[in-house]
Amino acid sequence: MIDQTRLPHAFEILRLESLEAAARAIERMVVRGAPLIGATAAYGLALAMREDPSDASLSTAYDRLFRTRPTAVNLRWALDDLRQRLGPLAAEERAGAAWRRAAEICDEDVEVCRRIGEAGLTIFQDIYARKAQAGPLRVLTHCNAGWLATVDWGTALAPIYMAHDAGVPIEVWVDETRPRNQGASLTAWELGRHGVAHNVIADNAGGHLMQQGLVDLCIVGTDRTTARGDVCNKIGTYLKALAANANGVPFYVALPYTTIDWNLDNGLEIPIEERDAREVTHIWGRDDEGSIREVQLTPDGSPATNYAFDVTPAELVTALITDRGVCDASRAGLAALFPEQQSRPRRL
Amino acid sequence: MIDQTRLPHAFEILRLESLEAAARAIERMVVRGAPLIGATAAYGLALAMREDPSDASLSTAYDRLFRTRPTAVNLRWALDDLRQRLGPLAAEERAGAAWRRAAEICDEDVEVCRRIGEAGLTIFQDIYARKAQAGPLRVLTHCNAGWLATVDWGTALAPIYMAHDAGVPIEVWVDETRPRNQGASLTAWELGRHGVAHNVIADNAGGHLMQQGLVDLCIVGTDRTTARGDVCNKIGTYLKALAANANGVPFYVALPYTTIDWNLDNGLEIPIEERDAREVTHIWGRDDEGSIREVQLTPDGSPATNYAFDVTPAELVTALITDRGVCDASRAGLAALFPEQQSRPRRL
Repeated sequence: MIDQTRLPHAFEILRLESLEAAARAIERMVVRGAPLIGATAAYGLALAMREDPSDASLSTAYDRLFRTRPTAVNLRWALDDLRQRLGPLAAEERAGAAWRRAAEICDEDVEVCRRIGEAGLTIFQDIYARKAQAGPLRVLTHCNAGWLATVDWGTALAPIYMAHDAGVPIEVWVDETRPRNQGASLTAWELGRHGVAHNVIADNAGGHLMQQGLVDLCIVGTDRTTARGDVCNKIGTYLKALAANANGVPFYVALPYTTIDWNLDNGLEIPIEERDAREVTHIWGRDDEGSIREVQLTPDGSPATNYAFDVTPAELVTALITDRGVCDASRAGLAALFPEQQSRPRRL
Repeated sequence: MIDQTRLPHAFEILRLESLEAAARAIERMVVRGAPLIGATAAYGLALAMREDPSDASLSTAYDRLFRTRPTAVNLRWALDDLRQRLGPLAAEERAGAAWRRAAEICDEDVEVCRRIGEAGLTIFQDIYARKAQAGPLRVLTHCNAGWLATVDWGTALAPIYMAHDAGVPIEVWVDETRPRNQGASLTAWELGRHGVAHNVIADNAGGHLMQQGLVDLCIVGTDRTTARGDVCNKIGTYLKALAANANGVPFYVALPYTTIDWNLDNGLEIPIEERDAREVTHIWGRDDEGSIREVQLTPDGSPATNYAFDVTPAELVTALITDRGVCDASRAGLAALFPEQQSRPRRL
């Protein structure tokens, strides 16, 4: 895995060699991004099966990985998928089957993200055509939903890469994304490496930019999308959706089918992870001698609170961009793209 | 002056002994906050008059100070006030008159902020009473509009201090306020020293908190308020106002009369200061050895954009809390409190 806690200042590869290493990598956000968490959890189960393929081990590994992050639903999707496949197998077949399925999940994620990119590209090209050459297409994104968050391409960034590659002049406003700065450290790094023009901005700036007509569209990923189209994504997404709505800026959410939680309607019921206050009170970066160093921002004795996600109601979402195409952020919109889910029994 | 670029990690007093030192202190945000900028500019003019009380010096000093920050209107108010008073005086009387008037402006600011606090306290007590003891009064504020931003009391923080002192159980959500972190470094420090319960949050968090019913009211300061009640304040204020509006949370703006720009109606015409990108790409804090140190957050080669203020349209403001009492954020509301301004010729 790429150690995402070291970017953009160092590019380091870690090997995860045990269930516990995989679980800790997810918890510490060495790997993050809903699709990548799912893929990593699949390999985490495979690592557990290599050590001990018993039913008890399968159950323990499932629980350990499930506890790592409460909000993203891809984690549960991947764990359920593997448990269902491995359960009926003889113990000696489980490790091999788990490795193969984890690899399949990765390959499928690449293909799914590619399709999201193609569906989004059409939208980007339409909006750019309507600008009639009045400057580049200006896109605002929050957090990191790029190839670092997936296996390749990304979700929200896939159409950005494809538009850039197709010759659409594009400029990206990159929300810093406090407190963990996934925008400033990961999205800016990805876009820079791909040669996509971008500007890092404080999370506070997006409302002003939209008010001034400096944003043509917003696009973000999602950690969990409900059956009626409510979107749970990185904290702060909701504020940008409100600003987009108030200023007539289209607000798109890009997602693989694995982030849809068909068991849930109301996004406000999604459990919101609360992380360590230290992510707010301290920050790390590269000092003038090139070392990565942490500094304290707040006064001694001032506590902090750190919710990691928020919920954007479906009404604020212009459309969902999925691997099966584009739909309204609504029950009807999702049902049209995923008819097989409609007859599925709801889990209670 | 307190050097506000060193807080909360060091409390250092600077002496400003020349016009240029005062101008640079405003530019570098050693002093910041609309009322304090006005008071500092008045002393800057007084320092210039001490050196050279000629008409040419008065004009040069006015221009030098006026150029320091484009958005806050208190700066212009203080400079116009002094120029108007000093112009008719003989050169040898100017320095003394300037010192006396600068001191008066400071004394008046204390009294004005005290009155804002009293007007706000009534609102806070009403909202707390309606909560019927369902927990403490939870207030969200953005940036720093406390005594550090004024001469004493503060604007938005004045009612918070008074409510706390009056025994209202109060807890403050302190927006970090990127990129310069005035919330995390100044507001948290002020509140901590006064013993007011508070929690620092990422700027991204406020929407989620309001959606979850965890905010009873928002209160912020302003750098310029137009004659119809549009409010220009620290970048990100607008996003919180949108979230408050969407979630039925009252959104108050506290201001002395000196921040009202009677010559302007439409807030979107206010010049928005664009500051150095380095305020976004780098951040400073206290390292584990106790030194104040700057670190880089973004990848090399990723540019950043840094708008310092945004505009909250009057429609999103529940009420303005002024030194003359509380009014609607509207032309009629302001006219009722400041009738003498209505007959005043508009500057073209």
